[in-house]
Amino acid sequence: MTAKAVFYHAGCPVCVAAEQQFASALDQQRYQVEVVHLGEQRDRIGEAERAGVKSVPAMVMEGQVFHINFGASLADVKG
Amino acid sequence: MTAKAVFYHAGCPVCVAAEQQFASALDQQRYQVEVVHLGEQRDRIGEAERAGVKSVPAMVMEGQVFHINFGASLADVKG
Repeated sequence: MTAKAVFYHAGCPVCVAAEQQFASALDQQRYQVEVVHLGEQRDRIGEAERAGVKSVPAMVMEGQVFHINFGASLADVKG
Repeated sequence: MTAKAVFYHAGCPVCVAAEQQFASALDQQRYQVEVVHLGEQRDRIGEAERAGVKSVPAMVMEGQVFHINFGASLADVKG
């Protein structure tokens, strides 16, 4: 059985390559990793907020939010 | 071949369980994960600083530092 992990980001050019490395480092036999670009998929912002995401990039795994570095606040993404 | 990933933390009681989940979620066929408690292994603080760690918890993967949430600054760990 795989758990779901969602990696939210906003396309930050400095970070995106590193963060995709990070997301891709998860054990894909145990985690199904979805990468969501909130700048392009703005309809997912509400879902991210409800999951507890305060800034991007962030990884939500089994209901827990891990904020990674500090890229942009969700307020900035909403613009 | 496995790459090395080092997870630095300082025993923050709120976070340690979650972060160990995060560290253990990495693909262990690709990453050899070492968990370092800087409060107990103070001789590793210099190494963490040289790797670019500014706060804990942090994961260093292939020379890149990912700061996760914000627990404690290294200055606090040094006390």
